[in-house]
Amino acid sequence: MVSQQARCIDELIPLMTRWRRDLHKYAEPGWLEFRTASIVADELEALGYELQLGKEVIDEQSRMGVPPHEILARHEQRAIDEGANRKWVNYFTGGYTGVVGTIRMNKPGPTVGIRFDMDALHINESVDISHVPVEQNFASIHEGEMHACGHDAHTSIGLAVANYLAKHREELTGTYKLIFQPAEEGVRGAKSMVAAGVVDDVDLFLTSHVGINVDLGTVVSGIDNFLATTKFNVVFKGKASHAGGFPEEGKNALLAASSAVLNLHSIPRSGKGQSQINVGKLRSGYDRNIIPAFAEMQVETRGETTEINTYMVAKAMNIIKGAAQMYDIDYKVEIVGEANTSQSSKQLKNYIQKVLSDVPIVDKVLDSAPFPIGSEDATYMMNKVIENGGLSTYMIFGTDLAAGHHHEKFDINEKVLEIGLAAYIEIIGGIAKFTIENEFR
Amino acid sequence: MVSQQARCIDELIPLMTRWRRDLHKYAEPGWLEFRTASIVADELEALGYELQLGKEVIDEQSRMGVPPHEILARHEQRAIDEGANRKWVNYFTGGYTGVVGTIRMNKPGPTVGIRFDMDALHINESVDISHVPVEQNFASIHEGEMHACGHDAHTSIGLAVANYLAKHREELTGTYKLIFQPAEEGVRGAKSMVAAGVVDDVDLFLTSHVGINVDLGTVVSGIDNFLATTKFNVVFKGKASHAGGFPEEGKNALLAASSAVLNLHSIPRSGKGQSQINVGKLRSGYDRNIIPAFAEMQVETRGETTEINTYMVAKAMNIIKGAAQMYDIDYKVEIVGEANTSQSSKQLKNYIQKVLSDVPIVDKVLDSAPFPIGSEDATYMMNKVIENGGLSTYMIFGTDLAAGHHHEKFDINEKVLEIGLAAYIEIIGGIAKFTIENEFR
Amino acid sequence: MVSQQARCIDELIPLMTRWRRDLHKYAEPGWLEFRTASIVADELEALGYELQLGKEVIDEQSRMGVPPHEILARHEQRAIDEGANRKWVNYFTGGYTGVVGTIRMNKPGPTVGIRFDMDALHINESVDISHVPVEQNFASIHEGEMHACGHDAHTSIGLAVANYLAKHREELTGTYKLIFQPAEEGVRGAKSMVAAGVVDDVDLFLTSHVGINVDLGTVVSGIDNFLATTKFNVVFKGKASHAGGFPEEGKNALLAASSAVLNLHSIPRSGKGQSQINVGKLRSGYDRNIIPAFAEMQVETRGETTEINTYMVAKAMNIIKGAAQMYDIDYKVEIVGEANTSQSSKQLKNYIQKVLSDVPIVDKVLDSAPFPIGSEDATYMMNKVIENGGLSTYMIFGTDLAAGHHHEKFDINEKVLEIGLAAYIEIIGGIAKFTIENEFR
Amino acid sequence: MVSQQARCIDELIPLMTRWRRDLHKYAEPGWLEFRTASIVADELEALGYELQLGKEVIDEQSRMGVPPHEILARHEQRAIDEGANRKWVNYFTGGYTGVVGTIRMNKPGPTVGIRFDMDALHINESVDISHVPVEQNFASIHEGEMHACGHDAHTSIGLAVANYLAKHREELTGTYKLIFQPAEEGVRGAKSMVAAGVVDDVDLFLTSHVGINVDLGTVVSGIDNFLATTKFNVVFKGKASHAGGFPEEGKNALLAASSAVLNLHSIPRSGKGQSQINVGKLRSGYDRNIIPAFAEMQVETRGETTEINTYMVAKAMNIIKGAAQMYDIDYKVEIVGEANTSQSSKQLKNYIQKVLSDVPIVDKVLDSAPFPIGSEDATYMMNKVIENGGLSTYMIFGTDLAAGHHHEKFDINEKVLEIGLAAYIEIIGGIAKFTIENEFR
Repeated sequence: MVSQQARCIDELIPLMTRWRRDLHKYAEPGWLEFRTASIVADELEALGYELQLGKEVIDEQSRMGVPPHEILARHEQRAIDEGANRKWVNYFTGGYTGVVGTIRMNKPGPTVGIRFDMDALHINESVDISHVPVEQNFASIHEGEMHACGHDAHTSIGLAVANYLAKHREELTGTYKLIFQPAEEGVRGAKSMVAAGVVDDVDLFLTSHVGINVDLGTVVSGIDNFLATTKFNVVFKGKASHAGGFPEEGKNALLAASSAVLNLHSIPRSGKGQSQINVGKLRSGYDRNIIPAFAEMQVETRGETTEINTYMVAKAMNIIKGAAQMYDIDYKVEIVGEANTSQSSKQLKNYIQKVLSDVPIVDKVLDSAPFPIGSEDATYMMNKVIENGGLSTYMIFGTDLAAGHHHEKFDINEKVLEIGLAAYIEIIGGIAKFTIENEFR
Repeated sequence: MVSQQARCIDELIPLMTRWRRDLHKYAEPGWLEFRTASIVADELEALGYELQLGKEVIDEQSRMGVPPHEILARHEQRAIDEGANRKWVNYFTGGYTGVVGTIRMNKPGPTVGIRFDMDALHINESVDISHVPVEQNFASIHEGEMHACGHDAHTSIGLAVANYLAKHREELTGTYKLIFQPAEEGVRGAKSMVAAGVVDDVDLFLTSHVGINVDLGTVVSGIDNFLATTKFNVVFKGKASHAGGFPEEGKNALLAASSAVLNLHSIPRSGKGQSQINVGKLRSGYDRNIIPAFAEMQVETRGETTEINTYMVAKAMNIIKGAAQMYDIDYKVEIVGEANTSQSSKQLKNYIQKVLSDVPIVDKVLDSAPFPIGSEDATYMMNKVIENGGLSTYMIFGTDLAAGHHHEKFDINEKVLEIGLAAYIEIIGGIAKFTIENEFR
Repeated sequence: MVSQQARCIDELIPLMTRWRRDLHKYAEPGWLEFRTASIVADELEALGYELQLGKEVIDEQSRMGVPPHEILARHEQRAIDEGANRKWVNYFTGGYTGVVGTIRMNKPGPTVGIRFDMDALHINESVDISHVPVEQNFASIHEGEMHACGHDAHTSIGLAVANYLAKHREELTGTYKLIFQPAEEGVRGAKSMVAAGVVDDVDLFLTSHVGINVDLGTVVSGIDNFLATTKFNVVFKGKASHAGGFPEEGKNALLAASSAVLNLHSIPRSGKGQSQINVGKLRSGYDRNIIPAFAEMQVETRGETTEINTYMVAKAMNIIKGAAQMYDIDYKVEIVGEANTSQSSKQLKNYIQKVLSDVPIVDKVLDSAPFPIGSEDATYMMNKVIENGGLSTYMIFGTDLAAGHHHEKFDINEKVLEIGLAAYIEIIGGIAKFTIENEFR
Repeated sequence: MVSQQARCIDELIPLMTRWRRDLHKYAEPGWLEFRTASIVADELEALGYELQLGKEVIDEQSRMGVPPHEILARHEQRAIDEGANRKWVNYFTGGYTGVVGTIRMNKPGPTVGIRFDMDALHINESVDISHVPVEQNFASIHEGEMHACGHDAHTSIGLAVANYLAKHREELTGTYKLIFQPAEEGVRGAKSMVAAGVVDDVDLFLTSHVGINVDLGTVVSGIDNFLATTKFNVVFKGKASHAGGFPEEGKNALLAASSAVLNLHSIPRSGKGQSQINVGKLRSGYDRNIIPAFAEMQVETRGETTEINTYMVAKAMNIIKGAAQMYDIDYKVEIVGEANTSQSSKQLKNYIQKVLSDVPIVDKVLDSAPFPIGSEDATYMMNKVIENGGLSTYMIFGTDLAAGHHHEKFDINEKVLEIGLAAYIEIIGGIAKFTIENEFR
């Protein structure tokens, strides 16, 4: 799969399909992308990129929602069994599955960061023969793990862009950092890459997603309405006792959790904009006749602004503490994911809108997503770059979908790979001019 | 109404009716028995009793559920307007409305404490002409205040017993302490009399109630199944804000209270016996469009044993604290009443059963109440006496009732006054023998 | 206060102040504007308006939140005692306190409806000497009733406009309907005037509010972001029983209400826009030791769109029904107020913006209110007119406020009366031209 | 394990240990006792008992808490693999794992029913070497299935009693029905055996339990204070939707369940005696960011009397229905276990107390259990026999326990097997005389 030399564009289109299908078949969820990241590293190394890996690009303290040790170990071993390059895997041990490849063009110019996310979801892929990955034999062979959000496509486009850049160093300007991020699902990974300084020197930041209710051929030049979000787990620990004989000796974790659930949903809606909260999962108690000694909840808050989300989290913490106090029980809250809101830079959006109008396979370019969008942790990178005086944008490459994101029959139209690559090439091609016209840096 | 000399029994029967009807007409709720207690003091003084009054018999720190200053002041003035003796009222100022009269018999013997409660309820008495107090013109003239529990009868019997004792000092033995207690309703008064040491020297303790589902002519020699109870008020103080525009700026006291209500009722039932809890009253918020900034609750717990009630209170305090924590609001709990369980002493019950079988107007003597009984704070006195090595009992004098206790048409059959007096006289008469036979003290 | 002839503008300014102060002093809450409406009727009649009153302009079935009969009767009598004209009051008996005055100009043209609301709030006015109405001796003499929202100013401006129109019939075009509406507070009155057909023939609809966070001298040409709202009362009826002895025989209305409160606040936030809910007031139970047999709640929902509010109400009804079902108790819901969202017509807003730029005492004209606005039932009228092919707008005339709306020290700067009148005169003056330019009707 | 001839008592003691250890090793939970019941059938057949099996002794409609088909099938196959006699297993297919053996003595007399329960629990047995079954190599080889309640001892005593009866037909009177019951855990099996008529002809009913906080050597002649109980599962079915984008489209089953949990625990305590409720297990939702579409709860109620338990169930059903109504979702309740209270017959208790005083290895006989006892479905059989004019009792054979019932280290002192057998032999031996003396039947 690795070549000594970058391919030309015509070669890249079928290659993207091959990469995407291979990654789809060997789907790896967040912090477990041992094989995926080692393929990326192999390819970037072969293309002459300077590599940073593992703890160099992932700050240990800032990781969120990392799986337990035994799962990390089992997946690492599995990746090796499935052909991952041990050389890279050693960097990734413990779930530090990030890769950044840097390449300098022959002419001076801004540093452009492009970010691609690599992780799959914890979903069982459909086995229905009508599902194209089944029919074409690239459905996930990992039970309960599936690329149902298109990050396989993102990584494939990333590898194609890497090839293109390596082949066009002569004509292009500046420096390119290709950032392959783990654990975007659950908004767990980006914060730790920012904390490791990955985007500190980036002047222009680009990233993108396929699908998301946008038609094939349509590109959104920049999204502004991601919701800020915090994901956290709560464990209430009470005390068991026999419900028939000695109920008064127990400390009922389920009553604490039930109170928490009702009151979390009762947090006053903010008058400043949309706020959301959900307790998506609750597990409590083992036996009908025993006072439940534990309750575990998975919770998320959202806000139209980071401020609103912060408000929701603060109120939620009060409620959880109070619920534990009510039943004199212990509790623990673990933040397992977090993302903020972000604005795509207007100049960059306008520039993209202009240059993409020249791309034949792009039918339409929108400058915003006119519908609710979920949350994204690339916003950490976007905000950091903007804070440092740079520009950022988050694009959508529309595609037909066989079924919605996170569905067991999710599948993209692979034509979007070509559109994505073409868009990046067009954008990259004009950056020199854009930089001058905008007196940017 | 006051005489210089104790009357004979035949005179006492009509007198008890007169006293009872007068007290009924001028009903005074707990800590407000200014007129009632001054009538008691007048009578006892006239009979030659040594008197203790006010703060001497009521410990300031141990009073519970005392009305606000302005209500105390208004009722004190009213009592004077209605003929209360200013000499005594001065002792009662601020609601210290207790009276203890002590009289020594000519022969040595144990100290016998007999307790009578004096307070009325906050109830509007029926104005229906079929209601005997209306027809006979002794219905309460105090709006919202009514003797709907028979304490007017208790006090009247107490005054008759006082007369009897004063007339029979020659034949009787020992010392008698007649304890006229305020604020039994809401179990607020007895604790403070015990704390003032009123029963410290009592060897035999007697008290009684009229009615309570027992037929006229039947006497219960001793009750064992009072429920322990704690009465408390809770105030949650949050922060108002406009519900349409700025709900996030408020702190919702009603949500805290609603959570508290549900969770208070969810306290695990004890496997050790009956437990109860009730939030009987809740008031919260002023306006539909304002986040409620306050919530006030009236709560009571009960337990088949004092231990169970203590358990309920401890759990309730956790829940209230937790509910306030949930919404980051302040709260205050005030204990406004408390009573424990108690056992009537077997020896005393047996003795009473024996001597009352000789009283013609007593048809039947039971040794327990075979049905749920509420709570009583005379239990504080009973327990203290037993702790000190003495004996205690709580009797019921059955009577027909026009309507149940605490009902606006509650009314006793006044024949019970005679039965009560006869029972006390018979019991008093045999105490010398009882003391010797039981080697009591 | 009534004149035979319309006054000129210079006379109107001090008159508006006099009217406003008189109405302020004799503040009358919703459906109780007997005196206010009779003053309006007196004035309009004197000016030669054709009058419609009472049930002719208020549809009986569509009234909401009408006070009980005895309150209506008492206020009607009070109005007469305070000088209300019996001739008009007879029309208003039972709370039908609406007045519509129609006047035809000499030249043909569209029918212009202008609406003024007349009701006060249930608030105790401050007695602080620093409060201008106290100092100037026009504070409300009606305990618990106060013009704390500026409707006294609205009615006064309305009477001035009535005068102006009557004096300028020669130059002006079309027909003017001046709609004096009762019970805007709690959004109770407008629906019934629409149902009575009051705006069926209106082509251009104008209304306005003073204050609302807008500076003196600034006018908003049209508001678009009123929240839709529904106001309702809930009564749960359970069954009392003694909490110590027979708790199982009761049906606890407070537990039902507490569950309802928590779950009402837990209704999922809509992803389509702002939604709000508030249980602003709860009353339940009489006694600590009795299972609460009743609970009464005052609730409101809001929505950024009428659709969202409708969603909130539907969900709320499910929850209330379910809460009653939980405790096997009866319940009743009464809708006591309702209002929708509305859009001010763009053409009209632009027109107003243009003509008001010529008014010297208007410093600035905004085309929207850039902050959360509460709810308004004039939206019923606006929507009806637009439905019929007409145009509507809702203006704000900014003013300094001594304290916020609905505050006991609320007070306007009376300069706003002059600004309001000037604005209406300017708008009225250009309507002929506006009609032609816009080929309107 | 099967013999052609009944053994003498000396032989039975080591045999009971062998049986008990074999059953312990091959522990089978309720309705899955395929191997256990076939061993019982083998033994009873060999001893000459008339057998009734499967659907003849288990009424199909009255079974509760039956495992799903695939688990039944898997356990049936496992039993055969582990040596169960196919001849009997055919009768048990589908979980009808009951056996009744009847034997007629040579002399006439009453019909005596003795019931033994056979099922294990869903518990992982300890693997600690200090745990005797581990050390002695008879710990359960079935993962997650363990005799942690002593039913292995019950069945072993039953087989020994069967042997004794078969060997003493000459001297004994009447008819004996040995009832081997499945699924006592969760109180699921007895009702269906009663419904099948198993005890219709029984005059004297005996059953017993080992352990339960009673010392080795002590026997309780009859228990009166089992709690009535109902076990039920609840499933709420709502509708999933994305919590960030479209929360208003979901129907939140977890909010319904949380409300149900709080309100179930809030059911008013009965004033008539002990009541309990527990939601012991709750599972809801799959994903943090999805509105939970399901919630499953395991619930039990208890009552000091059947009436109180019935009250608790009725209130619980209202609450569950109401909670579903609140969120407009579907729900299903399945009763999976039920037992009533029962009184052991006084005559029988007295008789047992008398005859057991002659048994040297019985140190003490108590006539009641002076502590809270759980629930038992043998009460169905007891009540049916008493209803038909017979007598019933439920005994305890005390034993030291290594750890409490339902604990992973539960273990009996096997000496209790001998005590149990000796007690039954002594009771059986005197039944002829008891029958005559009591003119029983």
